[in-house]
Amino acid sequence: MKALLVVAHGSRRVESNDEVRDLTGRLGAQTNGAYDLVQCAFLELAEPSIPDGLRAAIRSGAQQVVVVPYFLSAGRHVVADIPAEIDVVRKEYPDIEIIQAPYLGAAAEMTALLLQQAQQIHN
Amino acid sequence: MKALLVVAHGSRRVESNDEVRDLTGRLGAQTNGAYDLVQCAFLELAEPSIPDGLRAAIRSGAQQVVVVPYFLSAGRHVVADIPAEIDVVRKEYPDIEIIQAPYLGAAAEMTALLLQQAQQIHN
Repeated sequence: MKALLVVAHGSRRVESNDEVRDLTGRLGAQTNGAYDLVQCAFLELAEPSIPDGLRAAIRSGAQQVVVVPYFLSAGRHVVADIPAEIDVVRKEYPDIEIIQAPYLGAAAEMTALLLQQAQQIHN
Repeated sequence: MKALLVVAHGSRRVESNDEVRDLTGRLGAQTNGAYDLVQCAFLELAEPSIPDGLRAAIRSGAQQVVVVPYFLSAGRHVVADIPAEIDVVRKEYPDIEIIQAPYLGAAAEMTALLLQQAQQIHN
């Protein structure tokens, strides 16, 4: 069983966190069975935390969890903080494979997406 | 003459700001002539500021500047801070059209992009 965990920074604004939850829900409907479970977690300021999100996926039966950072730059959060949070749960569940995927901002398509947003104003 | 201004938050990490500058450079090469000028600006912590970025585009001859926020959520920065910065320059140049486009995170394709990042680990 495979799980996908979308990890966002988390915000004091409830709406921003709900935006991530909505996105995750839409994503869950689009995986065509590639993942049995799609959930989100937050680095700070919102629940669940990354360890709690990982534990929930594992308790639901996930043997592999892919963590995809919903971040735009390869800053400290992506390079150090998220890996450290993952390591906490790796030690608790050494038999479960937890893999951090490239962060969102690394996607080559980001330029096309920005251009598309810019062109929305002409509609 | 039309300009596109990619507006990012800005970071204390030079590499994060350079990542935005690189992205903007790549974007500039992909517009197929839709914009005569593609530059970036930062809300805080990096240069140029949003007003300075707008002024530079206008001095280069832009009659219309589209501002696209490189932000993932519709927080205070997108809803209030960026519009306030734009207004400063609107007052200086009332004949120039400055339009704020939808922020990046509003793009429907975000889910597909996250899924793609997750699947990079299988390569």
